[in-house]
Amino acid sequence: MIMFYCDYNEGAHPSIIKLMNDTNMEQHEGYSEDAYTEQARQLIRKACDNNDVDVHILVGGTQANMTVISAALRTHQGVLSAETGHINCHETGAIEAGGHKVLALPTADGKITADQVRKYCIDHRNDSSFEHIVQPKMVYVSNPTELGTIYTRRELTEIRAACDEFGLFLFLDGARLGYGLASPGNDLDLPFIAEVCDVFYIGGTKQGALFGEAVVIRNEALKEDFRYIIKQNGGMLAKGRLLALQFIGLFTDDLYMELSRHAIAMALKIKEGFEAMDIGFLAENPTNQQFPILPDAVLAKIGEKYGYEYQKRIDETHSAVRFCTSWATKEENVDSLLADVRKMLYHS
Amino acid sequence: MIMFYCDYNEGAHPSIIKLMNDTNMEQHEGYSEDAYTEQARQLIRKACDNNDVDVHILVGGTQANMTVISAALRTHQGVLSAETGHINCHETGAIEAGGHKVLALPTADGKITADQVRKYCIDHRNDSSFEHIVQPKMVYVSNPTELGTIYTRRELTEIRAACDEFGLFLFLDGARLGYGLASPGNDLDLPFIAEVCDVFYIGGTKQGALFGEAVVIRNEALKEDFRYIIKQNGGMLAKGRLLALQFIGLFTDDLYMELSRHAIAMALKIKEGFEAMDIGFLAENPTNQQFPILPDAVLAKIGEKYGYEYQKRIDETHSAVRFCTSWATKEENVDSLLADVRKMLYHS
Amino acid sequence: MIMFYCDYNEGAHPSIIKLMNDTNMEQHEGYSEDAYTEQARQLIRKACDNNDVDVHILVGGTQANMTVISAALRTHQGVLSAETGHINCHETGAIEAGGHKVLALPTADGKITADQVRKYCIDHRNDSSFEHIVQPKMVYVSNPTELGTIYTRRELTEIRAACDEFGLFLFLDGARLGYGLASPGNDLDLPFIAEVCDVFYIGGTKQGALFGEAVVIRNEALKEDFRYIIKQNGGMLAKGRLLALQFIGLFTDDLYMELSRHAIAMALKIKEGFEAMDIGFLAENPTNQQFPILPDAVLAKIGEKYGYEYQKRIDETHSAVRFCTSWATKEENVDSLLADVRKMLYHS
Amino acid sequence: MIMFYCDYNEGAHPSIIKLMNDTNMEQHEGYSEDAYTEQARQLIRKACDNNDVDVHILVGGTQANMTVISAALRTHQGVLSAETGHINCHETGAIEAGGHKVLALPTADGKITADQVRKYCIDHRNDSSFEHIVQPKMVYVSNPTELGTIYTRRELTEIRAACDEFGLFLFLDGARLGYGLASPGNDLDLPFIAEVCDVFYIGGTKQGALFGEAVVIRNEALKEDFRYIIKQNGGMLAKGRLLALQFIGLFTDDLYMELSRHAIAMALKIKEGFEAMDIGFLAENPTNQQFPILPDAVLAKIGEKYGYEYQKRIDETHSAVRFCTSWATKEENVDSLLADVRKMLYHS
Repeated sequence: MIMFYCDYNEGAHPSIIKLMNDTNMEQHEGYSEDAYTEQARQLIRKACDNNDVDVHILVGGTQANMTVISAALRTHQGVLSAETGHINCHETGAIEAGGHKVLALPTADGKITADQVRKYCIDHRNDSSFEHIVQPKMVYVSNPTELGTIYTRRELTEIRAACDEFGLFLFLDGARLGYGLASPGNDLDLPFIAEVCDVFYIGGTKQGALFGEAVVIRNEALKEDFRYIIKQNGGMLAKGRLLALQFIGLFTDDLYMELSRHAIAMALKIKEGFEAMDIGFLAENPTNQQFPILPDAVLAKIGEKYGYEYQKRIDETHSAVRFCTSWATKEENVDSLLADVRKMLYHS
Repeated sequence: MIMFYCDYNEGAHPSIIKLMNDTNMEQHEGYSEDAYTEQARQLIRKACDNNDVDVHILVGGTQANMTVISAALRTHQGVLSAETGHINCHETGAIEAGGHKVLALPTADGKITADQVRKYCIDHRNDSSFEHIVQPKMVYVSNPTELGTIYTRRELTEIRAACDEFGLFLFLDGARLGYGLASPGNDLDLPFIAEVCDVFYIGGTKQGALFGEAVVIRNEALKEDFRYIIKQNGGMLAKGRLLALQFIGLFTDDLYMELSRHAIAMALKIKEGFEAMDIGFLAENPTNQQFPILPDAVLAKIGEKYGYEYQKRIDETHSAVRFCTSWATKEENVDSLLADVRKMLYHS
Repeated sequence: MIMFYCDYNEGAHPSIIKLMNDTNMEQHEGYSEDAYTEQARQLIRKACDNNDVDVHILVGGTQANMTVISAALRTHQGVLSAETGHINCHETGAIEAGGHKVLALPTADGKITADQVRKYCIDHRNDSSFEHIVQPKMVYVSNPTELGTIYTRRELTEIRAACDEFGLFLFLDGARLGYGLASPGNDLDLPFIAEVCDVFYIGGTKQGALFGEAVVIRNEALKEDFRYIIKQNGGMLAKGRLLALQFIGLFTDDLYMELSRHAIAMALKIKEGFEAMDIGFLAENPTNQQFPILPDAVLAKIGEKYGYEYQKRIDETHSAVRFCTSWATKEENVDSLLADVRKMLYHS
Repeated sequence: MIMFYCDYNEGAHPSIIKLMNDTNMEQHEGYSEDAYTEQARQLIRKACDNNDVDVHILVGGTQANMTVISAALRTHQGVLSAETGHINCHETGAIEAGGHKVLALPTADGKITADQVRKYCIDHRNDSSFEHIVQPKMVYVSNPTELGTIYTRRELTEIRAACDEFGLFLFLDGARLGYGLASPGNDLDLPFIAEVCDVFYIGGTKQGALFGEAVVIRNEALKEDFRYIIKQNGGMLAKGRLLALQFIGLFTDDLYMELSRHAIAMALKIKEGFEAMDIGFLAENPTNQQFPILPDAVLAKIGEKYGYEYQKRIDETHSAVRFCTSWATKEENVDSLLADVRKMLYHS
C-alpha cells in the first residue's frame, strides 16, 4: 500500500533521527529546561527575526490548541473559528472540555475574513442581552486551512486590525505552516506571522519531525505562567530535549522550507496531473492536500494500491477524497498514482 | 411604560404569594427535604400521570439546563440542539463551561427534526475519524421553541425513535411549556411529554411563579445522584420550600393551564390585531411570543410607551421585534397597544 | 419539632415579605437591571461607606463562591482555604468542577493565619518544580467561620499584607456575616471589610431574607465582565428584583444588625445555659452556631422534640452536635430547650 | 555534572533507538491504528497474562492520569489518593481542571490503606449532608509510591475489597512500576496487578523508553469510548507507532525487567553505601529513589559535581534530598558518588 492518507505516515527526516541517535545517552534536565531546548528556541526566534518571543514546544496540535486557548481566555470568553477549523471539528471537543465555546463562522474555503470578525463583534456589542452570550475574545485561523487554502498578508493584516478594534487575540494554527509558506501564491513569512499574530505555532509533526509543535508567543499578556498551563494540560514532556531536537533539525540549513518545497512540488504534480485528466476538486488549493472528485468505481480500484482519505459524497457516483503529500513523498509514487488513475479513467 | 419585554416582568400570581405569606414563619428542613417539596412532587407526578418520575425543582432555566446536561453526559459527549436553542445562544456558554459541546443544527423555525438527528448520528458513525469528533449523546429541544413554534406529538415521537436508534437521551426544555400546551394547534400534554422524553422541565419563572423550573426525570439512568449535581452546580436552594410553594400554587386547581390560556389569548389578540394591519412576522407562531416586523419610525414611537425586545434588522427601514404576553398581561394594555400602532401606521 | 437545625428554617422577616407583597404586580426589567436593584446597591454601598464598590446579588452561597472564584482565577490557579472551609467541604466540588483546586490549610478553629498564607506562598516559590504545582492566587476566609469563630481586624489586616506580598486576592465569605458583626469580641465592620478584602459577600439567606448573597467587589480587576460569569454559572435570576427587595429590607432601619443581635443573644443564652450545666463544646465561639458535647442518650431524647445537626463522635458515649439560632429564634424555645436538657442531665 | 536528578535524564535504551531507526521510513496509519501498536498491545496482554484487557499507550503520566480519571468519573465524583500522590501534588491541578476533586488521605510513607478507604466511604455515607460533599468513586495508588515505598499483594487485595464494598474503581499509577517489581520485598507481578486493579499503567518514560505510558484497562465499564477521551485530552499522538515501538522494545526479551533490576541494584548500592556512613533517610524504601538526609554543607559540595533533587529541610543544618537511579545509571558514577560523600563527611 502506497499511502497518501496524511502527512504523518512516515517517521522523521534522517537528519533529525541522526541528532537523536547522537545525543541519546547524554544526560539532560527534564521538562524543557535543557540546553537543546534553549538552542531550538534561539533558532526559532532567529527564523522569526524576533528575539522577544517566547517559544514552547509541545508534542501535538490538539495539545497546542487547548493550551494556548486555556492560557488566553477567561471562563466566559470564546474563540472565533471557521466552522471547518480543527478546533471546531476534529479535537473531540477539547476546547469545550476546557470550558470555552468555539464560535463557528461560515466559510466556503476554510478561511474567515476581517469583516466576519468585525460583524460578529459588533452584533455582540449591540445585543441587548450581550452578557447572556459568550464574549468573543480570540480569533483562530489555520494556515494552510483544513481545506488547503492559504491566507494573504493583506487578509491577515485586516483580521489583525479587526482584532485590535475589538480587543481580540489572533492565534494562528500552523500545523502545516511550511507547506503554506512554500506554496505558489504565498506572500507570508515567519517574521510577518510573528508580528501579525499574538501567538501561533510552527508544526513539526506533519513537516518531517517525529512530533512537536513550536508555540511562539509575542503578546506579553499571554506569556505569563504559560508553563504551568502546559503542565496542567498534560503537555509537559519529561524528556523535553526530544522536542528540541526535532526543531534543531528542522531549523538548521533551511531544512524546514526545503522539505516543505518538496511536498508542494509533489502536490502540484498530483494537482496538475488530475487537472490534465479533467478531474475537478472539492477545494482548489495550492498546498499539500489535494481534494479531487472521482468516480466511486475508480476510487475503489485505486484504493487497492493507494491510501487516501475519504471526504464526502458529491453525487450518486462521485466522491471527493484527499491525497496528502509530505516531506517524505516519493516522486515515483506520485507518477505511479497518476499513471494508474489515467489508465482506470480511460479504460473503465 | 407598559412592558411586553418578556414573560417575567411581574412577580407571581397572588395565590402563590398567599401561600408564601401563610407559611412564612413555619419551620422546615432545608434543601428541598421538606414536606411542601414532597407535596409539589406529588402534584407534578399526578399531572404527568406517572408515579415513577423523579422531580427536582431548580431556581432557573440555565441552571436546569446545565445540571441536566452535566448529569447525563460523559466528558466526550455533546448535545444536539437547534442553532437557535437557548443552550446554544443565551447561556453565556454554560454548557461548554461544563465541558460539553453544543452540536448546533440549522433551523428556520426553531425546531429540529428526527431526520436531522438521524443524519448527524449516521455521519458521525461513518466518519473514519469519529473518535476525533464529539460524540452526540443527547437531543435538546425547547417547546415552545425560542421562536415560539411548537412541536407535534408526531414530531416528538419521531425524534424519540431516532434517539432510541442511536442511544441518545431526549431532553425537553419547557421554560414556557404551558404556553405551548395552551396554544391552538397543540396536541401534546404532560403525560405524553413525560413518556416521550428521558427528562424535561416545567417552567415556573415565565408562567406565574416567582422562579422555579421543575425537572422531571423518567429515565432511571439519569436519576442516580442527581442531587449531588444540583448542589455542585450551585442550584440547591437553602429554603427549598419556596420552590415547592410555587408549584403547589401552579398545580392546584389547574392554575398553570388557566394562566397559560390567558397569555395565549392575549398573544393571539396581538397577532390578529397586527395581521389585520397587514403587518408581517419574523416567525409565525401560535404562542406567547409574537415577532412582528414594523417600520423603524413606528417602533421608535411605540417604544416611548411600550416595552418590547429588539430582534433583528429586516431591511433598511424595518426591524423585527418581540412582544411577549404572560399570565399577567392586562387586556386593556393589549387593546391600547393595538390602538396606538394602528394610529401610528395610518397617520404617519 | 422545634428546629435548631440551621439558620434558614423559616422564611423571611415580615418586613421583607411586605415589600414583596407590595410590589408584586409592578412591572420591572429582568436580570437585575431594575430600579430596586439599583436601590439595594446604593444601600449596600452606603453601609460599606464606599461608593465605588460593585454589588451583585446572587441567590445562594455556593453560587456566590463559584462565581467569584471563576471570575478571579486563571486555569492554573488555586484558592487557599481552611480545610474546614465551605468551598472545601460542602459544595460537592463546585470549585473543582470550575477547574480550580482548593488548597486546604490545617486549622483547629476554622481560621487561617497570615503566616500560613505566607509560608504556603514561599514554599511554592522555592519549589524547583513550582510550575508542576497549582499556583496560589486567592485566599478564601469565612467570617464567622464554619466553626463559628470570628476574625479580628488585626488578623485580617495581616492576611491582607500577606496577600499583597504575594499578589493574592482576599475573598471573604460572609454567609453569616451579620452574626459575626453582632457577636461579643467582634471589632470588624462593613467599611473595614470592604477595604481589607478584594471581594466579599453579605449573606441574606441565613440572616432573615428568603435568599440572596450580596457580592461586593472592590478590586477593579475583578469587576470586569462579572455579569457574564454570573450568567454562565446559572446565577442570573430572571426576576432579579426579588433579590433586591431582600436587601432593601435588610438594609433599611438597620434591620440586618438588629436581627443579627437577636440571634446572637439567643445563641449566648444557649451557650451560657450549657456552660452552667458543665457541658463542653467542640469549638468554643461567640456566634450563632453552638457545638455542645452531650451524652448520646441525652441527645436521643432531645432529638424527639428539638432539631439539631449531628457533628461528630467524641468518645464512645458522647457526640458533638450543632444548635443554630437565627433572626427567627424564639426565646421561649431556647428556654424550653435548656430546661429539658437540664432535666435530662440531672434525672437520667 | 553527573545527574541523579531523576530517572529520565537520558534518552532511550539502544534497542528501542534501533527499532526506531529501522522502521523510520516505513509508512503507517496514524493515531495508534498501525500494526506495531497492535503488536505492542499483544506483548503487554501476554505480560499481564490476560487477553481481554484493553491497552492504550499515552505519551506521559499526567496525561494518563487525567485521561483515565476523566473517563471513569461522573462530574460529582472524586478520587481518593495519598496526600503525597502525584495527582494531588505535581500535576498543576490537572485533575481539578478536568472537574474532579482529589480527596487526599494522610500518609507517612506514601501509601494508603484499605481501612482509610473504608472509613472515608463510611463517613461519606453517614454524613447527613452527603449530597453536599464530593462522592468518592475511585482509589488512586502509585506503585512504587512517590516516596519509593511499595505495596504488597495483601495490601492491594484489601484495598480491592474495600473498593468492591463501596463501588469504587481501583487505579494504579505505575510510572515506575518495573522498579517496584524488581525491588527486594516485592511480591506483585503484572498478572496480579491486571487482576486486582480496574485500570493501571506501565510506565515507559522513566524505565528506558523515550516516553510512553501503557494504560491497561480490565473493567469493561472503563473501556467504552476511551479513545475519544484520549483525543479530547490532547493525548492522541499522530505517529502512534512511536509509542508502540517503545513498548515492543521494553517487552521483548524481558528488557523491561532487566533494566529495572539494574536500576534497583544501583539504588541499593547507594542506600547501603549511605547506611554504612550512618546517614539516615527521609523515607526508607527499596526502590530507585533514595532520600538521604545530609548536612547542608556536604550537599553544597556534592552539588558541584552531582545532580540531585532537593526535598525538604530536616533541621537547621540538614536537608533531605533525592538521588534517583535508572536503567541508564553507570556503576562507576555510583561508586564515585559514594567515595566523594565519604570523603566529604569524614574530612569536613
